Amino acid sequence: MAGSTFGVAFRVTTFGESHGPALGVVIDGVPAGLALDLDAVADDLARRRPGQSALTTRRSEADAPEVLSGLHEGRTTGTPLAMIFRNADADSRAYAPFAHLYRPSHAEFAYDAKYGHYDPRGGGRASARETVARVAAGAVARQLLAGVGVEIVGWVESVGDVVAELEPVGVTREAVEAHATRCPDPEVAARMEALIREVRSEGDTIGGTVRAVARGVPAGLGEPVFDKLDAELARAMLSIPAAKGFEIGSGFAGTRLRGSQHNDAFVPGEGGRVRTRTNHAGGVLGGISTGEDILVRVAFKPVATIFQPQDTVDREGNPAVLVPRGRHDPCVVPRAVPIVEAMLALVLADLWLRQRGARV
Amino acid sequence: MAGSTFGVAFRVTTFGESHGPALGVVIDGVPAGLALDLDAVADDLARRRPGQSALTTRRSEADAPEVLSGLHEGRTTGTPLAMIFRNADADSRAYAPFAHLYRPSHAEFAYDAKYGHYDPRGGGRASARETVARVAAGAVARQLLAGVGVEIVGWVESVGDVVAELEPVGVTREAVEAHATRCPDPEVAARMEALIREVRSEGDTIGGTVRAVARGVPAGLGEPVFDKLDAELARAMLSIPAAKGFEIGSGFAGTRLRGSQHNDAFVPGEGGRVRTRTNHAGGVLGGISTGEDILVRVAFKPVATIFQPQDTVDREGNPAVLVPRGRHDPCVVPRAVPIVEAMLALVLADLWLRQRGARV
Amino acid sequence: MAGSTFGVAFRVTTFGESHGPALGVVIDGVPAGLALDLDAVADDLARRRPGQSALTTRRSEADAPEVLSGLHEGRTTGTPLAMIFRNADADSRAYAPFAHLYRPSHAEFAYDAKYGHYDPRGGGRASARETVARVAAGAVARQLLAGVGVEIVGWVESVGDVVAELEPVGVTREAVEAHATRCPDPEVAARMEALIREVRSEGDTIGGTVRAVARGVPAGLGEPVFDKLDAELARAMLSIPAAKGFEIGSGFAGTRLRGSQHNDAFVPGEGGRVRTRTNHAGGVLGGISTGEDILVRVAFKPVATIFQPQDTVDREGNPAVLVPRGRHDPCVVPRAVPIVEAMLALVLADLWLRQRGARV
Amino acid sequence: MAGSTFGVAFRVTTFGESHGPALGVVIDGVPAGLALDLDAVADDLARRRPGQSALTTRRSEADAPEVLSGLHEGRTTGTPLAMIFRNADADSRAYAPFAHLYRPSHAEFAYDAKYGHYDPRGGGRASARETVARVAAGAVARQLLAGVGVEIVGWVESVGDVVAELEPVGVTREAVEAHATRCPDPEVAARMEALIREVRSEGDTIGGTVRAVARGVPAGLGEPVFDKLDAELARAMLSIPAAKGFEIGSGFAGTRLRGSQHNDAFVPGEGGRVRTRTNHAGGVLGGISTGEDILVRVAFKPVATIFQPQDTVDREGNPAVLVPRGRHDPCVVPRAVPIVEAMLALVLADLWLRQRGARV
Repeated sequence: MAGSTFGVAFRVTTFGESHGPALGVVIDGVPAGLALDLDAVADDLARRRPGQSALTTRRSEADAPEVLSGLHEGRTTGTPLAMIFRNADADSRAYAPFAHLYRPSHAEFAYDAKYGHYDPRGGGRASARETVARVAAGAVARQLLAGVGVEIVGWVESVGDVVAELEPVGVTREAVEAHATRCPDPEVAARMEALIREVRSEGDTIGGTVRAVARGVPAGLGEPVFDKLDAELARAMLSIPAAKGFEIGSGFAGTRLRGSQHNDAFVPGEGGRVRTRTNHAGGVLGGISTGEDILVRVAFKPVATIFQPQDTVDREGNPAVLVPRGRHDPCVVPRAVPIVEAMLALVLADLWLRQRGARV
Repeated sequence: MAGSTFGVAFRVTTFGESHGPALGVVIDGVPAGLALDLDAVADDLARRRPGQSALTTRRSEADAPEVLSGLHEGRTTGTPLAMIFRNADADSRAYAPFAHLYRPSHAEFAYDAKYGHYDPRGGGRASARETVARVAAGAVARQLLAGVGVEIVGWVESVGDVVAELEPVGVTREAVEAHATRCPDPEVAARMEALIREVRSEGDTIGGTVRAVARGVPAGLGEPVFDKLDAELARAMLSIPAAKGFEIGSGFAGTRLRGSQHNDAFVPGEGGRVRTRTNHAGGVLGGISTGEDILVRVAFKPVATIFQPQDTVDREGNPAVLVPRGRHDPCVVPRAVPIVEAMLALVLADLWLRQRGARV
Repeated sequence: MAGSTFGVAFRVTTFGESHGPALGVVIDGVPAGLALDLDAVADDLARRRPGQSALTTRRSEADAPEVLSGLHEGRTTGTPLAMIFRNADADSRAYAPFAHLYRPSHAEFAYDAKYGHYDPRGGGRASARETVARVAAGAVARQLLAGVGVEIVGWVESVGDVVAELEPVGVTREAVEAHATRCPDPEVAARMEALIREVRSEGDTIGGTVRAVARGVPAGLGEPVFDKLDAELARAMLSIPAAKGFEIGSGFAGTRLRGSQHNDAFVPGEGGRVRTRTNHAGGVLGGISTGEDILVRVAFKPVATIFQPQDTVDREGNPAVLVPRGRHDPCVVPRAVPIVEAMLALVLADLWLRQRGARV
Repeated sequence: MAGSTFGVAFRVTTFGESHGPALGVVIDGVPAGLALDLDAVADDLARRRPGQSALTTRRSEADAPEVLSGLHEGRTTGTPLAMIFRNADADSRAYAPFAHLYRPSHAEFAYDAKYGHYDPRGGGRASARETVARVAAGAVARQLLAGVGVEIVGWVESVGDVVAELEPVGVTREAVEAHATRCPDPEVAARMEALIREVRSEGDTIGGTVRAVARGVPAGLGEPVFDKLDAELARAMLSIPAAKGFEIGSGFAGTRLRGSQHNDAFVPGEGGRVRTRTNHAGGVLGGISTGEDILVRVAFKPVATIFQPQDTVDREGNPAVLVPRGRHDPCVVPRAVPIVEAMLALVLADLWLRQRGARV
């Protein structure tokens, strides 16, 4: 029942299947008067798009947003902002030969169990194509947040076993975008690329992790006790296709520390601001932002579509062998960066608006 | 704004501070006609309670639920089920000497930034005491789910560097409850206990991880695209105090696998059921349950209250040194087990009820 | 904050302004497997459309729904059903001359107070054009309800002082559609038409009332205590532009009765069903449907756009005189009938789906 | 599913049955820092209480709120404010003799149809006793609104055919409270009282109407298009037990006016404020407050419990005759006044908080 809406105050509803006429998003709750830069929205969409380099699938998508409502002379009106994205290249012929088989680790079986049917054309609502709508909404949220000094940057931290050990503090979007892998460490990025090429040549796929930081977030965002900032972030990130794990701040590594190591001492900061000496918390205490950088990590499993024969069953439950065809990513992680950024922006925009009611 | 409610169909609202008169929970949406076993609720509350062993804080809490509404002759009526829990032992004197200091890695600073004030008496709404209400609600959800064959078991997988390598399949609640650490491997449990005692003797604390499994979950639960089962679980788990990370199925380890390793082949199962050969997915595909075991892992940071001097600031931002007193856990992880189970039950009960509307 | 969504389980989100590119609706929560008759949707849209007769405005609208998602081979998929409606005839020149004036009893002043701006082109989001999206969603809801035997019929009961005294029991859609006024009593309809023509000739407008009945509604729909069936209906009806009053069953007239007159005696019905001898309740007791006909009445004020000079102020607050031009209805009441029916269908579909979770 | 919550930002959840241990309310979203006057809450509860005069039922209720959370040293903390009200006088013996009969125009039959059971003890959740929780929440909302200059006054306008023709402008709470009927016109009040006594002597009951005004409401409150101020008010009022009709501003009478009569001309007001010459709108245009007085009218049917034999059926559907006993109001309308005021306050507090996010 009704799972296509995200957020309470900055309320995003998405719709659309990968092989239908269009996808779209309605944002109810954008404050009136925001000067919206649609080119910046298109830029984020371009970063999400497949076919950006040899490392990603070659399916082409032209995703300029078509704005249907909520804008007047370049400014938001306060009423719902609606954008749609036509599916220009919705060729589903590649799916036809195996339409009767459940693809391993894809969603069709689960959709079938849920709804009593499935749409065999490329994943339907479960397709990664759905994230177009999120990225567009996130780009609007990002512009809203920019007005209060929030900056969001994400990057690829690992692909398979190739890991970039990076301090989040200095990472810039320019450094991230300098390489097709979206890893800001050029040497590690090159090794990631080599791994992705190798995996691709084997008809296989590989997972990885994305980190993201939000800088300049005001202290006080997040709602006790269920709508904590970190809880909302976890939900947001796990709602991205292929996500399998989430960390805020020290994450799983923090479980091995003592309290005396993990605690972030408060210290006086500039202009009377209270700061912390370290940031194991990842910018959140008790579910509420502290003003320190918000730091998250998201795990993405390897893409399920591989070009090797796989055991499966058909819709009647009979054993079968699947040999997929089509165009797919050997590694979705570089393209996941703008999606993680978008979800981070959506959570912060929502909680920032919700915070307006916190005090008399 | 309004973060104390969890769930859409099985809708849980909690209230109460650690040092106020009482905590409570209202569950709106419990189906009518459920024969509720209040002793089972009390049992889960007892498992959450501090002071169960030398390993946990000695604060005593008598948490039999007082049912105010929603039950008639032992059955739910369909109207809101309300339970309250008196704070019998709310001695806040231990907090008085450092009421003017921000405790490192506690929530007061963030609450102060949010609301313009804070309640210095033991954490207020951010206290772990708040989880009483969750555990009670989870116990109700668990009974609802038991009626459709769902069983939930959680356990401590690691404390600091001491890790139990266990197959989730065979773990029983009896094995879990056999040791105060709630680790079902007796040898590892003994080492965990030794570590906790060592940490305690140093006035320090230590983190750890909890795993939980839900068995017998019907296929089809979870709502695309934002209210995915795994997304709801992530939110639920990260809303628990001290949680810093979440994994479903293969989690972060899965990012290092190839697709050919990670994919779970479909195979014919008993009675015409479709099964998977492996379960890297953790029972969820496309955000929807598959009928395989739901498998989660949650990271808990070390408790912030330590008995060593720490640098901090006072409410005016001046440097200060904090030497806490009071009664606290050296390791919260064993007590987190029933809380993780409760949140797992709440998510499943909600999505199970929501699924009733999925088909004509 | 976020007022463009209606319903919990059958969840309708609308967007669009009268003079933007398009309006649209997203319905999240349509059960999968409903065979959707798009012609029936178009029929309801045609009934709402201006320019159906000399009695209504001549603005032409071609409102065939463009379905963007949620349908596959004629059946709903369970995922969001999105429809858009292009604004083919969005000529805003008529508004230009008085763009700087607040039109009396129009929404611009209030929007301006709310958002700090207004869209002078024909009412923007406050335009009656917005109801296109409701009627389309209502047509989907109506088809869902038809599957459980629910039939909805609305009609014009009064225009100004011309009132049709009708028993709701026998009213059919055929009788309603037989006359442009949508009053099923031909003699009264003729007098209504004469009144509307007279009012139009004076450059004036006139209000009226709409009644609607839902037959075959299962007993048990509606949620205590705030989401009562009658409360949801009241909200639904008052959300229609120009609505000023609502009654369920006996309404205001019932306040003048004694309890001994007003009470509906229970009597044995066919097939063991419990019926009531009278239906002052209007099919609802304690906010829950009883199985008797749901009976509502809605008051619509006279349209605010008149062709007579009116005192007003400009955006700076200076006195001014407004002489409107353009194309408008002398009486919106006949066109309100399908809108009232749509809102009735939306409420019932939502509560019918919500009822699925009421029992174990 | 889950109908016990009201409001989005000022979010009220109630629980409790008339004959259970207690009723209660949780308000999530009360801004922090409000100095709460609990005596004022108790005063409103006293006005709602039965047994205030010979005109109302003699059941005694001692409804001082017991605050369980959300207050610290007299100020709201921003976390959920919970209050409970013990059922001191829950004698259900009077109900026993007719527990197997459906009382005409009561909710048991509908509850039975919904949940498969009913609670024969005095109405359970459908009892008017439930409104204790609303009135308490409304008293908190009223105090929040008082801080921005909003004043709310309700009164009895009619009992049966006895109607007070009053200009809302001058009505004060003092005048309202001067007579047990809560009609501020002493002469009409005396006639109302005579009618109520007559009706009571016949073992019968009588309905009536309540009007209420909110003065000083800032312009801009209300959310297009479904959460309009008037739509929310309609829902709020129809959710009150026994309510059958709602009007905003001119209401049903307005349907008989011409646009030229009904339109409220804008005129320059004091301090540059824009005012309207008349207020047929009732303070709302396009669903958004204009700054003029909010004016509502609510219809209440005669109480269903009468002391005359009535035809009915038993739970098996067999014909039966009911002769009720117990203590009940001959006319609920005077006691409905504080309930209408409370619901008005809840709607305004919620929309006032929601308005905080309307602009950048």
